Order: sequence, then structure tokens, then C-alpha cells
Amino acid sequence: MCRFLLYKGKQPILLAHLITRPKHSIVNQSFDSRLRLDTRRPLNGDGFGVGWYDNESQEQEPITPCIFTSVTPAWNNINLVRLAEKIRSPLVFAHVRASTSGSVSETNCHPWSYGRLMWMHNGGIAEFEKIKRKLQNSLSEELFLFVQGNTDSEWAFALFLSFLSNPNANSFEHQELKEAMLKTIAQLNAWAEEYDITEPSLLNFAVTDGETVVCIRYTSSKTEEAASLYFSSGTRFECYRPGHYRMVKADRREDIVVVASEPLTFEKADWLTIPTNNILVVTPKLNVLLQPIKDKFYTPERGMEIKIGDEDVAIIPEPKAQLFKAQAEEQMQQDSPILVG
Amino acid sequence: MCRFLLYKGKQPILLAHLITRPKHSIVNQSFDSRLRLDTRRPLNGDGFGVGWYDNESQEQEPITPCIFTSVTPAWNNINLVRLAEKIRSPLVFAHVRASTSGSVSETNCHPWSYGRLMWMHNGGIAEFEKIKRKLQNSLSEELFLFVQGNTDSEWAFALFLSFLSNPNANSFEHQELKEAMLKTIAQLNAWAEEYDITEPSLLNFAVTDGETVVCIRYTSSKTEEAASLYFSSGTRFECYRPGHYRMVKADRREDIVVVASEPLTFEKADWLTIPTNNILVVTPKLNVLLQPIKDKFYTPERGMEIKIGDEDVAIIPEPKAQLFKAQAEEQMQQDSPILVG
Amino acid sequence: MCRFLLYKGKQPILLAHLITRPKHSIVNQSFDSRLRLDTRRPLNGDGFGVGWYDNESQEQEPITPCIFTSVTPAWNNINLVRLAEKIRSPLVFAHVRASTSGSVSETNCHPWSYGRLMWMHNGGIAEFEKIKRKLQNSLSEELFLFVQGNTDSEWAFALFLSFLSNPNANSFEHQELKEAMLKTIAQLNAWAEEYDITEPSLLNFAVTDGETVVCIRYTSSKTEEAASLYFSSGTRFECYRPGHYRMVKADRREDIVVVASEPLTFEKADWLTIPTNNILVVTPKLNVLLQPIKDKFYTPERGMEIKIGDEDVAIIPEPKAQLFKAQAEEQMQQDSPILVG
Amino acid sequence: MCRFLLYKGKQPILLAHLITRPKHSIVNQSFDSRLRLDTRRPLNGDGFGVGWYDNESQEQEPITPCIFTSVTPAWNNINLVRLAEKIRSPLVFAHVRASTSGSVSETNCHPWSYGRLMWMHNGGIAEFEKIKRKLQNSLSEELFLFVQGNTDSEWAFALFLSFLSNPNANSFEHQELKEAMLKTIAQLNAWAEEYDITEPSLLNFAVTDGETVVCIRYTSSKTEEAASLYFSSGTRFECYRPGHYRMVKADRREDIVVVASEPLTFEKADWLTIPTNNILVVTPKLNVLLQPIKDKFYTPERGMEIKIGDEDVAIIPEPKAQLFKAQAEEQMQQDSPILVG
Repeated sequence: MCRFLLYKGKQPILLAHLITRPKHSIVNQSFDSRLRLDTRRPLNGDGFGVGWYDNESQEQEPITPCIFTSVTPAWNNINLVRLAEKIRSPLVFAHVRASTSGSVSETNCHPWSYGRLMWMHNGGIAEFEKIKRKLQNSLSEELFLFVQGNTDSEWAFALFLSFLSNPNANSFEHQELKEAMLKTIAQLNAWAEEYDITEPSLLNFAVTDGETVVCIRYTSSKTEEAASLYFSSGTRFECYRPGHYRMVKADRREDIVVVASEPLTFEKADWLTIPTNNILVVTPKLNVLLQPIKDKFYTPERGMEIKIGDEDVAIIPEPKAQLFKAQAEEQMQQDSPILVG
Repeated sequence: MCRFLLYKGKQPILLAHLITRPKHSIVNQSFDSRLRLDTRRPLNGDGFGVGWYDNESQEQEPITPCIFTSVTPAWNNINLVRLAEKIRSPLVFAHVRASTSGSVSETNCHPWSYGRLMWMHNGGIAEFEKIKRKLQNSLSEELFLFVQGNTDSEWAFALFLSFLSNPNANSFEHQELKEAMLKTIAQLNAWAEEYDITEPSLLNFAVTDGETVVCIRYTSSKTEEAASLYFSSGTRFECYRPGHYRMVKADRREDIVVVASEPLTFEKADWLTIPTNNILVVTPKLNVLLQPIKDKFYTPERGMEIKIGDEDVAIIPEPKAQLFKAQAEEQMQQDSPILVG
Repeated sequence: MCRFLLYKGKQPILLAHLITRPKHSIVNQSFDSRLRLDTRRPLNGDGFGVGWYDNESQEQEPITPCIFTSVTPAWNNINLVRLAEKIRSPLVFAHVRASTSGSVSETNCHPWSYGRLMWMHNGGIAEFEKIKRKLQNSLSEELFLFVQGNTDSEWAFALFLSFLSNPNANSFEHQELKEAMLKTIAQLNAWAEEYDITEPSLLNFAVTDGETVVCIRYTSSKTEEAASLYFSSGTRFECYRPGHYRMVKADRREDIVVVASEPLTFEKADWLTIPTNNILVVTPKLNVLLQPIKDKFYTPERGMEIKIGDEDVAIIPEPKAQLFKAQAEEQMQQDSPILVG
Repeated sequence: MCRFLLYKGKQPILLAHLITRPKHSIVNQSFDSRLRLDTRRPLNGDGFGVGWYDNESQEQEPITPCIFTSVTPAWNNINLVRLAEKIRSPLVFAHVRASTSGSVSETNCHPWSYGRLMWMHNGGIAEFEKIKRKLQNSLSEELFLFVQGNTDSEWAFALFLSFLSNPNANSFEHQELKEAMLKTIAQLNAWAEEYDITEPSLLNFAVTDGETVVCIRYTSSKTEEAASLYFSSGTRFECYRPGHYRMVKADRREDIVVVASEPLTFEKADWLTIPTNNILVVTPKLNVLLQPIKDKFYTPERGMEIKIGDEDVAIIPEPKAQLFKAQAEEQMQQDSPILVG
């Protein structure tokens, strides 16, 4: 299984602050991953990828992400180090890969893009080979031919795209992206049922159009945990000494959202656990919506709706949600409110 | 388009004699290809592959080829140079790639293997995207899931395998391999017709089980030439000065067969042009059968049956075949008979 | 031998316009180089590199270039294609490599950087192995240890750095960079004489500190030509149809300078041949000085001083210079003056 | 720091038995190294290399090893997996790299060869940059120019070669190789003293000419441990169930010697710790000599001379040697004697 990270901010961030400089950056997670469920092979050295959007689109060109991928490990890729020191972006996806399905090749490195959309996945679709053909045959010719690699993750992206009214559109409502994500999950679950797949899938997906970010922490199981996923927000992601970062919440404004498989900082209070089987939506204006996915794998302790950056903040009353709430409250007392707009 | 080479001999040959040392070796063809049809990008630098069989199978292990591939160009791959200087084999496939379909990745490098079978392709299936789904859906689950890359060539291999009664068999009759090759062509032609594909495909395929070699020079056109393909045979492939090789025909025995997209030697008489739309079979005992493929693209000048290493040698009477015969005769006068057993 | 390209403009340019989109871009030169002196191996597929400076330095960080290199050929590097479509810079170096000295490794890819300086080389130091130790021993400990690869080109960079009063300085006068370049040449010539090296070296070097560019077309021979080098300037580098570019000279302003081993456009008038054994200086304000190097390999036909972007324009009277002048005049008549400020 | 492995046997072994199939093979050590001294970055993913000699030299060609290296991690290199399943050799070196000095490039991958000699290193020369120039200047022109990479390890190889009367010789006495190894250590120690280097170097070196193997476990410290190194010998290296191997000692004959940074089997009794600051010599006929290096870092507990495969077996009386002896005795009681001829 892999690790991923996404950043959305009002201001562009130097990629190095996210990817290479933090002591527990995603690059270091690639060889020192502490929270992986799969402990058979404790590292993510089968390639990596970084995708980002320009701060300002220029020359009336269509908005598309730039993606840099490599099959060599992130930790010794000199190009990654050099690019990360120079490139700034307000919306970044980063991914380190440990192959579960699909061979080691650049076409199998996350993230992938389609038009202005970008996608990555941490986890695996259980017994994907059983539903691969079904999935492919559900796609339009265009989406079927779009896929270049042979991972479950890229095919899941194609499936997601098939639920958009026009995947080549110039703009998307965040509701449409969210709905397509939920349909993707629902469709994968339906096929799993059809083909008697009982092993749970681990479906931490993230997608963006360069404006909205939609991200889920999901497993097709009522009892098991999904792969880890953490959330942090604030006004500034600050380096207080080399390799050590913290999220600063200078006032009630939320200018930065970071979601990551593992915390990037050693400040416990910076990070909230996203509960299993929840969907997170970050709108273009940085409002955040966290919502449990109420399908057949839903259980009450997987939480209730939370909004950040808005007046309405729902409370999560059930056991696991209590923890989430406790974390949030602890954080609020420490420096500044996070869960209110 | 690509270049390929195959060698079958009674004795193992050092790979370097085929691959790296000849001045017009396949490695040099990779950047100085003189006979490519496609002149838009005059080189084959998108990866390469070499596959070979052990001289003697050991430890009762199943016979499978060893394959070495790389996405870096053949001409600067130090591992290829070093391995070629040490490895000996009686049956070698080598391929340099210029991508026509499929991205640059190791999974897209020829040759591919399945059980004891090995396959490579020089050319391209015209408008492959139109028939890709049809082809995939014609395959058994096992063959559908076997494909790792995204080239027309590898999918054509899967199609070939689907025409074998048991692709996992321990041994194959050369007739079965030949029939499966002809069915592969016929099926691709049928789909091309079904989907109104009029552009000719270039289908120089080669397959082996470690004993028999079957190879075609083929295009789905009555009027155009297929990609070039040459044949040479003799008793010894000799280096007479550094970088310069010749095929020695010491007596009437045929101990070596080489088939290549371009001649490896500068001796014109060493090489016979395989006529367009012919199938070549090299049996385990090194008998050679050259036979025109009499489908709807057949025209008389594409030749008649020839056997080498047997009593019966058919004559090719029609125009292009005359040239082939003339080449053969010229060669026979020069050093020693080649077309008789 | 290799090919290189450098761009300096008042406005940043999208790298794709220089590197990947032009039909005769440096990427295409990498496999279709028409003007190489060394025709033994007609391509530059042993890696490439691109270096550029940010449009505006931010966060008070020191000015250093960003460098992207790869040992795979430029023409199939998907990362290069993607980055080139997104990155804009007012000062770009690009290089495709055909190894003459030094193995194929990322440490041997041009350009290299040291502090804010960046360096690349097209050519080769004749019999470099004879003077390698001498060169190394002439260096300070810091510069000796700085070199990571094993090319004559990178060691020449270290030698150049040794002629600067402080290679780690925050700014350089263009005179100092020019003087250091001339000393580098002079020192290499002195060692060649000391070690009885008579074969001419090909020394097309380019260096920049992010502001000034110094570049030479040089060979240590009175009679032979150096590797080709062309100059173009104007107000805009314009794409008039896909793959086809021209230099537009809208008025007398010079907003862009391009120097390249081979012309990037098919407009003959866009390009002036830089005469053999000349040094070209492009100042931070885009004034251009072209000056013959008057050492023992100087001959009068190798030209006289020219300035562009200034009042004083020297005339080149001798034979080859006549051609240069004629080219310049022809160009001036065509659209707008180039050789006057 | 790195991990290495060497095998010498009377019979060739399939490389897979050493390199890819054992559950604690060197490939798995590359991401799950349990005994590394340097725990900062707990994996060896900066490339690997395997070198081996042919079973029988053919065609009167000079005996040289074949070397396969890669900058991608060993654990996902499909070529390594495929080659290891086919290649058999009676003398194998294998190495996985974690860069301490020198960038990630193929020229920096162990092992290196020179003529018939092959060399690898696990460890690092302390403050190598201080003595790099001195070392280089001590070399003949030929050896100075031979080095292609920029690691302390490859320069140490050049230094070793400089202590041979003729590094290009067709054969070497094992005494000469042993002496050159000791001189290499002594010279490095002398320079460390000259340049006030007090940090201990970790010098586990191995060298072979295809017949003899010389290997040291060494650190330039009286008190610290060298990097781990283990020894095993027997009549057969046997796979008793997939991934699980043991050394079988069928009779008193020693047909196999394996030396490795970490045990390849889970049978504790198979492996003896080579004491710090000892030199191990395996002669062409598989006699084994283990000898403490009695220089200024010698302390009595670092052992006394042991011979295996000969009549004379010295006992190691001092503390640490007691452990070694105890291990040996325990092993002898378990299955069969190992320390007598």
C-alpha cells in the first residue's frame, strides 16, 4: 500500500515544504512509514508522483495539472529534490507507491490526470482481477482507451470519470465531483457483491479539478479500519527549525488544508483523524465538509457531518466521533479554533 | 516501428556475436536503421529486449526463456553489453523498440513470454484502438489478466495464445504453432474488416517454444510491402575481423538460422529477402519451411512454398519470387548450397 | 558530441516553446542532428538536461537554477514534456548528450550548477585523460570535491570556477565571468601544449549566473571549424503554426536572445553563425557583445568585435566576417535592424 | 551503509537460491535490514549489483566476471529476478547499496571489476574527502583513469589494485591478494592518521580473482564493532520449503562457503560471526583461513587464527573469540563438524 498527501491553500506553497524538507515528509514516509496496515513490506519504494496546478493560469491555456513521476524511489530522486525547491503551487497531490497491483512502470505511478482532473489512490481494490473486465466494459470507448497502465487505481479513475456528465468540462461543481466519488464506491461495492468478493477493499481516493478537492477514507467493511488518513488546517504551514514544521492558526481564517496518510508534523494537535468511511470535500473557497458515507458499511460510530469554514458545525456524538471531537476540542483550546468558520 | 532478430542454432552462440559486436548489429540498428518503413523518427530508442533459452535445461525445471528488457536505449546499456559477453544460447530473440503504440515502460518491451513460449513483433496493428476491446473480450480470463502492458503487440500475443489448445503445455507441435499464427492473422483481418479499418497492418510476428520458431512477414494489403525481413542460414556465424561477420556454409548442413529485420553482415549473399506475406517455420531439427500465406491479400508474386533441409524444394516462379530464387541461386554459386537439404 | 541551447529574455518563456514544441527543437536534434561534426553515431541519446532560473526570486532565498536531468533520451521523457508545458523562465539552458567522455549517468548530464552559476559544454577536451590529474590538482579542495561525475565538461566547469575571485558570490560582473572563461580556455591550451596534445579540442562552453550569459564557440586549431553555434535575437519568439516558430523583430528593441548548436526555426534569416573562436556576452540588460578570441589560434577571418544593443557596432572586415556581416545586413533589410542598439 | 554477500562453491549455484528466493535474501535485506549499524535510514535502496564468474571459461577468452547493476532498488527489479532464475555460477558477489558517499548512479554500484578481479565494500571510509586527493595521487595513471564513479569504495579498489605487482595478470596467488588487502587497510589507516581523522572507518571489503576470495571485517577502532559479517560453510545450500534454506553438512567435506552481512537462513547454527578486524581467505580449493589483523587496532579478544579445511585449527581463547568458539562447538554438536578439515 502507498502513502499520499494533498495540499490546498489560498497561497501557493513551495513543494519542498510538503515533500522533501519535513522530517516526516512523504518522501521519508516512503521508507519509514509508521502507520501502514500492510506490514509485509514496510516501504513505499516502487515509484512516486507529484502533481500540481499553476498558481495562475496563463495565456488562456486550459487548466491542467503538471505531473512528475518516477519509478525510482522518491528518497534518492535528485530531480524531485531540485524541482521541489523551486516549484510553488496552491494545489498539490503527492504519492509514494508500494505496488499491490500493476507492475513497476511510470504508467503505474499516481497521480493520473484527465483534462483538468487529477486522481490518486492509497489502498487496493480487493480481488480486482475478478471485476477488471466488467469495469472496462462499463466504460465509454474514450475512457477505456485513456488508461495507459495496469493498476486497479487508474481503472478506478476511469470509472470515476464515467460518472461525470462531461469529464472534459472546463469546470465542475464540487457537488458533481462528490457525487461521482460516491457512485464510484457504490459501483465497486455492487461488483464486489456480484462476484462474491468478501475481502474488504481499501479505497482512500482523492480527486481534484484544480479548485475543489474530494477525498475519501473508505473500506468496504463494517468492522475494519480503512487505511489511515489525517486532516490539518490553519493559516500557515511553518518551519520552526530545519525539518520541523507546524500548522499555525493565526486567526479564525482557514487558508490551508492538508490531508495526508500520515501526519507531516510531530505536533499531535495539528492533525485530526478522518474517521473511516467518510468523505471530505474542500471547496474552492476552502470551506471543508466532512461527511460519513451512509451505505451498507456505515455504522454510527463512523461519525456525523462536520463543516469547517461555515456557520453550521455538526457534532459527532458516537464513540469514535467522540474521539474526533475530543481531538478537535483539544486543538481548539491549544491555539485557535479550527472547527468553526 | 521496431527491429528484431532471431537466432536458432545447433550450438549455443555468445549473445555478443548477434547483439553487440557486429557493426550492423541490432543495437546499431537501434540508431542507424536503414530499412525502416517509417522514416518520421529514424531510430529505435524506446527500449529493447533480449530473450533466450538455456543450452540445457537443468534440475528438471520447466523450460522457460530468460528475458532482459530495458527502457533505456540498447546502445548505451552497460548491462546489455556485459551480459551479451557472457551468455550463450541456442535460441535467441532480440528486439529494439520505437514506440508506435503503448507508452515507454518495461512492460511494453518485447519479447514477452508465457510458459515456455516467447513472442515479439515488428510493426503495428492498424487502428488498434478500434478492435482493442473486441480482442480483449475474446480472451479467456487467464489470458485477459496475463497482459501487463498496453501495446498492440502484447495483446496480439494473448490472441495467439488463445488459439493454442493449451498455452501452458510442456511441448508443442510446430504445426500447432504455425496454425495458431495463421489464425491470429486471420482473426485480426476479420476484425479489421468488421470495423472498417482500411489502413494496412504491419504484422511481422515471431514466436517460439524454445524448439520450433514460427515467424511471419505480413501486411494486410495486396499491394504494399510488409516491414523488411531477411533470412540467413549456414554452418557457422563467423567474425572475420572485429565488427565484421559472415555466415559460413562449410558443407550442406544447416546448423544455424538467423532471421532479422535487417542483415547483420555486409555480405549481400548471406541474406535472402523473405517475401511479403510468407510464413517461415524452423523446426526443432532446423528444417526450414517458407510458405506464402494464401488469404485474401495473397498475390502470386508473393511466392510459393520452399523447404530447406529437406528433399523437396519448391520453386518460386512469379516475379518477386524470381528475385528470391535468383538471390538463392547466386548465393549457391558463390559458396555452397543453401536451399537444399 | 552534444547539442545545446540557451535563452535569455526580458520576459519568461514557456519551456515547451524552446524545448519540445519546435519541429527542430533540441529534443528533435537529439535524434535528428543535422550539423554534428562527429557523424559516427548520429544521435544524442545519452541523456539530457534543462536548467532555468525563476522569474522572480522569492522569500529572500539565494538565486540558484533549477536543473532537471535524465539518462533516458529527451525524446521519450514524459516528465520533460509535462514540465516544459508548465514552467516559464527568463533564462534557460538545455542540453542533449552524446557521450564522448564519461559514462551514462545522471551525474554526467549537463548543465551543472554551483551556487548561482550554471554551465554546459558542447564538444570535448582532446585527450582529456592526459591532463585530468593536472587539472584536478590545480583546484582548491572545495572545487576538487564539488565534482560528482567523470566528464571533461564538469571538470572544465570546476576549472572555470577556480578563476573566479569567489565562486560562491551573490553577484558577478559580466566582465569577471568573461575573463574566467578566457582563462579557462587559455589554461586548457597551456596544458595541451605541456602534454603534447595536438588534436584540437572542441570547446563550446556556456555559463550564466542567472543574469549575464557568457558563451564561446571555440576550437584549439587555426584551421578547423569549431562545433556549430548560432545566434538569434528579436522581440518575440513566435509560433505561427504548430511546430513552426520564427523570431519576430517588432521594433529595434532586443528582448530575446537565443544561442543554439542548431537553428530552432526554419527561417534562415533568423540565425547568424557565430564565427569560430569568438566569445559572446549577453549582459543582464540584454546588450550583446561578440568578440574574437585573439590567442594563438586566432586568424583574422575569425572576425572582429560586434556589439548589439549599444551605439558602437564594429564591422567585421575579413572574409568569414564578411559572411557574418552579409547575413546580418540581409536580415536587417528583411524585417528590422538587429545589429544596432 | 550497505549489505553484501559472497558465495564460492565447488558446484555452480543458481543465483536465485542466494539472491531472490530466500526469505532473508540480500534483496529482502535491502528493505528489511536488521543488523545495520547506521539506523538513520533503514534500507538499502540506492541500487544493487551482482557479479559472477562463468562455470567454465570458454573459447580461450580471458576470465572476467559478468556484472549486472542497477540504480533501481533490488526488490522491484524484474530483470534481476529473471536473470537470477537462469544463471548459475560457482563464485558470486552480490551487493545492495545505501549511499554514504557518491551519488546514485550505475557507476557507483558495487561490485566493480578490473581484469579478472572483482571488488565490493560494505561500510565507509571516514572523512574520505580529506584523503581523496592523496589517494588519487598515489595511483598510477592507468588506475587513476580506471575509476568511473565517485565513491570511496571504488577508489579503495583502485588503491588495492595499486598494491598488486600486476593488476592485469592472468592469475594471482592468494597470498598476494591477501597482502594487498592488508596493505590497503594499512595505507588508509596511515592517511587517516596523517589527516587527523579520528572517526573510525568501516571497511568490510571483499575481493576475488574468480578463484580465491579475500574478505575482511574491519574497523579502524580498538573499541567499536565493525559492520556485521557472517560465515557459513557446508556441502549443500538446501531449500527445505519455499523461502527457507539451510546449510547442509553432509560429511566433513566443505563444498560451499557463504559470507554475508546478515545470515541468509533462519538456522542460527548455520552462521558464525566473523570477529571484528579479521581477514578471511578462501582458497581456490575451498580451504578457509580466518586470521585477526594485528595492527594498532588489534585487541586480543578479536581472535586468533582459524583454518578450515586443513589439519591445523587454531583455537581462539580470548573473550569474544570464546563466543566464536562456543558458536562453532554448538554447531558441531548439532549436525556435523565445521571447523576441522
